[in-house]
Amino acid sequence: MEKQVTKLRQYMSNEQIKITLPDGTVLEKSSGTTGMDVAEGISSGLAKQSILVEVNGELKDLSYPITQDCTLKILKKDADEALELIRHDCAHVMAEAVQQLYPGTQVTIGPAIDNGFYYDFSRKEAFTLDDLGKIEKKMHEIIDLGFPFERQVWDRSKAIKYFEDIGEIYKSEIIKDLPKEEEISIYRQGEWMDLCRGPHLPTTKHIGKAFKLMKVAGAYWRGDEKNEMLTRVYGTAWRTEKELDTYLNMLQEAEKRDHRKIGKELKIFTFDDEVGAGLPLWLPNGSIIIEELEKLAKETEDKAGYDRVRTPHITKGSLYEKSGHLSHYKDSMFPAMNIDGTEYYLKPMNCPHHHKIFASSPRTYKELPVRLAEYGTCYRYEKSGQLFGLMRVRSMQMNDAHIYCSEEQFKEEFLSVCKMYLKYFEIFGIEKYEMRLSLHDPKKLGDKYVDEPELWIKTEKLVREALQDGKVNFIEFPGEAAFYGPKIDVQVWSAIGREFTLATNQVDFAIPRRFNLSYVDSNDKDQTPLCIHRAPLGTHERFIGFLIEHYAGNFPLWLAPVQMAIIPVSDKFNDYADAVCSKLKSHGIRVKLDNRNEKMGAKIRNAELSKIPIMIILGKKEMNDNSISIRRRFIGDQGSMDIDQFIEETVNEIYTREKSKVDLDA
Amino acid sequence: MEKQVTKLRQYMSNEQIKITLPDGTVLEKSSGTTGMDVAEGISSGLAKQSILVEVNGELKDLSYPITQDCTLKILKKDADEALELIRHDCAHVMAEAVQQLYPGTQVTIGPAIDNGFYYDFSRKEAFTLDDLGKIEKKMHEIIDLGFPFERQVWDRSKAIKYFEDIGEIYKSEIIKDLPKEEEISIYRQGEWMDLCRGPHLPTTKHIGKAFKLMKVAGAYWRGDEKNEMLTRVYGTAWRTEKELDTYLNMLQEAEKRDHRKIGKELKIFTFDDEVGAGLPLWLPNGSIIIEELEKLAKETEDKAGYDRVRTPHITKGSLYEKSGHLSHYKDSMFPAMNIDGTEYYLKPMNCPHHHKIFASSPRTYKELPVRLAEYGTCYRYEKSGQLFGLMRVRSMQMNDAHIYCSEEQFKEEFLSVCKMYLKYFEIFGIEKYEMRLSLHDPKKLGDKYVDEPELWIKTEKLVREALQDGKVNFIEFPGEAAFYGPKIDVQVWSAIGREFTLATNQVDFAIPRRFNLSYVDSNDKDQTPLCIHRAPLGTHERFIGFLIEHYAGNFPLWLAPVQMAIIPVSDKFNDYADAVCSKLKSHGIRVKLDNRNEKMGAKIRNAELSKIPIMIILGKKEMNDNSISIRRRFIGDQGSMDIDQFIEETVNEIYTREKSKVDLDA
Repeated sequence: MEKQVTKLRQYMSNEQIKITLPDGTVLEKSSGTTGMDVAEGISSGLAKQSILVEVNGELKDLSYPITQDCTLKILKKDADEALELIRHDCAHVMAEAVQQLYPGTQVTIGPAIDNGFYYDFSRKEAFTLDDLGKIEKKMHEIIDLGFPFERQVWDRSKAIKYFEDIGEIYKSEIIKDLPKEEEISIYRQGEWMDLCRGPHLPTTKHIGKAFKLMKVAGAYWRGDEKNEMLTRVYGTAWRTEKELDTYLNMLQEAEKRDHRKIGKELKIFTFDDEVGAGLPLWLPNGSIIIEELEKLAKETEDKAGYDRVRTPHITKGSLYEKSGHLSHYKDSMFPAMNIDGTEYYLKPMNCPHHHKIFASSPRTYKELPVRLAEYGTCYRYEKSGQLFGLMRVRSMQMNDAHIYCSEEQFKEEFLSVCKMYLKYFEIFGIEKYEMRLSLHDPKKLGDKYVDEPELWIKTEKLVREALQDGKVNFIEFPGEAAFYGPKIDVQVWSAIGREFTLATNQVDFAIPRRFNLSYVDSNDKDQTPLCIHRAPLGTHERFIGFLIEHYAGNFPLWLAPVQMAIIPVSDKFNDYADAVCSKLKSHGIRVKLDNRNEKMGAKIRNAELSKIPIMIILGKKEMNDNSISIRRRFIGDQGSMDIDQFIEETVNEIYTREKSKVDLDA
Repeated sequence: MEKQVTKLRQYMSNEQIKITLPDGTVLEKSSGTTGMDVAEGISSGLAKQSILVEVNGELKDLSYPITQDCTLKILKKDADEALELIRHDCAHVMAEAVQQLYPGTQVTIGPAIDNGFYYDFSRKEAFTLDDLGKIEKKMHEIIDLGFPFERQVWDRSKAIKYFEDIGEIYKSEIIKDLPKEEEISIYRQGEWMDLCRGPHLPTTKHIGKAFKLMKVAGAYWRGDEKNEMLTRVYGTAWRTEKELDTYLNMLQEAEKRDHRKIGKELKIFTFDDEVGAGLPLWLPNGSIIIEELEKLAKETEDKAGYDRVRTPHITKGSLYEKSGHLSHYKDSMFPAMNIDGTEYYLKPMNCPHHHKIFASSPRTYKELPVRLAEYGTCYRYEKSGQLFGLMRVRSMQMNDAHIYCSEEQFKEEFLSVCKMYLKYFEIFGIEKYEMRLSLHDPKKLGDKYVDEPELWIKTEKLVREALQDGKVNFIEFPGEAAFYGPKIDVQVWSAIGREFTLATNQVDFAIPRRFNLSYVDSNDKDQTPLCIHRAPLGTHERFIGFLIEHYAGNFPLWLAPVQMAIIPVSDKFNDYADAVCSKLKSHGIRVKLDNRNEKMGAKIRNAELSKIPIMIILGKKEMNDNSISIRRRFIGDQGSMDIDQFIEETVNEIYTREKSKVDLDA
């Protein structure tokens, strides 16, 4: 630490600057003062805990010399920003460890990512799991040495030459490609150094012990298949060992709840090589879940005044030229089929078809809003390496709808959609979610965003006001809007805390005009409607994938493919079991009669493995009393009961989609 | 007539032959005797009415000289066979009329078809409607002349030369292409003659007056686009003028009920040039009908023990090679899409996907029958000229299912499907239908049919027995089976008597083996299941097209897109109307509130034009009494009623899918 402080003194001069702290305190300091100096000036306790500063809103190293008047915020390890730093620092330390252990390995890039970090190395052989253990050990050693992360600004050509001389050709290539105006900064820890924008923690010791190397994967240099295949090492890193443990437990739990594993065990879906990758076949159990979800969506949409439509899965290319899909989205579309000299495409989205239905008859303001809903199946091309269970597929059944409304109606309509999300979250027991309002970036108008600066500002204002009026919490994300307007992306967290992107609610002020959509307003003038694109339940594929993890396959009664197993104690009670079975079925209950010639225990175990919510046990007592005995998953034996009363209660539980009897942490 | 009789005498000899009549009577006649001779021998009345004979089961001219012992049946004009003769004779007479009126026109072919006949002519200009009137007049003149149809057998080369000499190059081409062993027979009426196999009526006069030329169309010679475009004249012909009138009335009614016209008026579906030909967009009203039909199908299939599945719309080509679609059905498939070097196709049928689901887990005899149902949307290529409203489309939503069963289960399963048809017919008020059992042709084994002679015989026997056991009426059609097994095609007639091919029920004893489908039987041996392909409601497209005509758009309450129009007498009653509307909606009734500022009469007319089954009129009296006044389509005013009683009755009518209150002839 002494060494670092000495070095930094060189930036200091006698010129005085004003530093404003978050509480309004203004400090007068010499130019070249660092965040660490300020922290030490306040208290040695604070200095010890500090890791980073925000100077005029920009994150900087604690050792960054401040040379102008500024606002200053000192960040400690508990700040949100600390996590990214810890992860990024881990990547540097891992790269040093690898180069110490495996000389000749070249470094390329190593960013912080969600939950951790990675580094891509160029090396003839891939790392083994054994290697990961060694690297991890070496990392702990480097961290213990507590070298400061030291920032140096290098001359570009000196930097290129340096990295070429030591055989780091990827690094020199990166430097060559950096914009001319960009400073070439090098971070050094002890003898090891890397090209890096920073910022970093004060020393390696600040990283702590809460990290773990997770896995090795292949990755092409710059993501291009034509380039060399590099070896990527993934790690996870956290502030505390407790956080790390929580994360590792969550992963372990996620593995147990893996939708591919449970999907197979519960016969929900399957894939078949001869059908094709990314094209799920929904088995009877999965189809029941789909139908229940569609029933919920239809009920909800009926009440909210939606009309349902049905549109074909293929369409002329010219329609996608008009909609802009062929110019903006072609890489995600399947190739064309030439029919009678015309190109047809599988639809990647339903919007152009719905626009056509809106346009199929003249509209007046009295009909608005027109809300067209469809569980349309769309097809999108994903690279085969990107496909992943139900989470990344090529065919997707979307809970889609398009709402055409006037500007006056917009806020209410938009807010209703957001509230529909909240209603669904309640039904599915989703307690943690986040609404992200994605806005345009004025610098990218005409390129990434339709070039309508005023419409952007106006529409974003409308959306913001709608959310505020409706008291819906949201976070703003500039530069993340859709091409044609602002949108809400909804993130949800499953019961075990994994994050999923599920739903979307988008405003479109551009495409309706391209499609010449119009309505006659109350003054007999033609107007272009606004269009809201919404898909609150996302796709069946991803949503059911999420639900499988969320419920660990223990679906609530209304969603469970088999709701009850009927288990006669012996074959003497098969007739009674048949009668009970028929009676339950006649009330629309999904029952499975297990009258196999097996022992009770085996039948019960089988029903448990199938995660069937209710078992109905039938023996002599039940037959004589004309009753049934109930055993409920997570709750246990509930004793015997009158069948009619049971049916009434159960039908009510199904009808109200009750969620209370499911243990999400089971 | 005298002339004909004289000519025929030349065939007679003194040799005696035995002719057995249908009642068993045996007549001894000279060889060369004709059917007409026999008829005259029985009674002059019979001779007058006779038109045709069946000699040893083969239809022959009445003037055909009988030279061997035979069975003989004399047919009169009321025989089923007469209609085809009348139509075929009309074609000959029309060709003569055309050649008299428009010299230089060449004849090609002119068969009898359903309801009538056509003839294809080679002529520079197409005929106009005016021309049809002239041709029809000339035909009546030719018929009045009463020339006998006289059969002559010609030498092949003489026939070719004759037709070439008179400039009939199509006729000479046809003769050249006839199989070597076939006799070249020429039929002559007066001076005009045509190549023809016969048989024909005795004279042109026998045709009568009950015919009408209908329309002109283009048709390629031999149906090949590369050949000359010919002019086809269509006519209709019947036994009696009453039959003709009935048919013409039916056509007129069919035109009024044209599903394209009503589909547009009632906003059921639309087509859009930018989406593509043959790809219907289902508007909200059509989507309601679709959902009601699916609900019916699902309820029916749930009760019958079906499981529903969902499969993607695209699949690898290799799957269709295995199933045989690519070798037998490629012309009806859309072209391939190349994805990552593999060809994918839009599915033309759901069977390969269902086979894959059957194969997705090991099966035992205890699970059988497995019944997999899906409303899968299939895509088939039809030439654009063949597309016709909803009747011939390129995208079709099929009420599909595949039943996998053992041989022992087969009869019961097959019959259950047939009975399911009958249940549907009852629901939709389809009173006339026909089950056609299509059988294989042993001559085409290995070509049109899988080469399994014994399996064919065995399976056809099973199907026949199933139908007989179930007392289901059917007609056998040899040579019409599917590639992989026998099938039932179901023809239905709409309320106005038009015939539609809707549904199919097929046995498949070949493809399950190709897919290695198997189950373990009770002796622990692997067995291949039989597969039944069935689609009792056909496709939504064709079935709804049929229903629109059948009901003339007057759907029964359960199917009507809008079930009730609520019409307040003036805006003073809008609040009451709102309350009534909400109450009805809360019972799932599809209501439309017409609170526009319009006159009562206009509102009622509007509801009538929209064919809404029930109007609810609300005025002072109703508001004061807390009642509603009902006006029912086809039934009229029903007076005022308590709303709760009305809801109970109506919900019951919807729930039971009552059909009695619809007037099919309206």
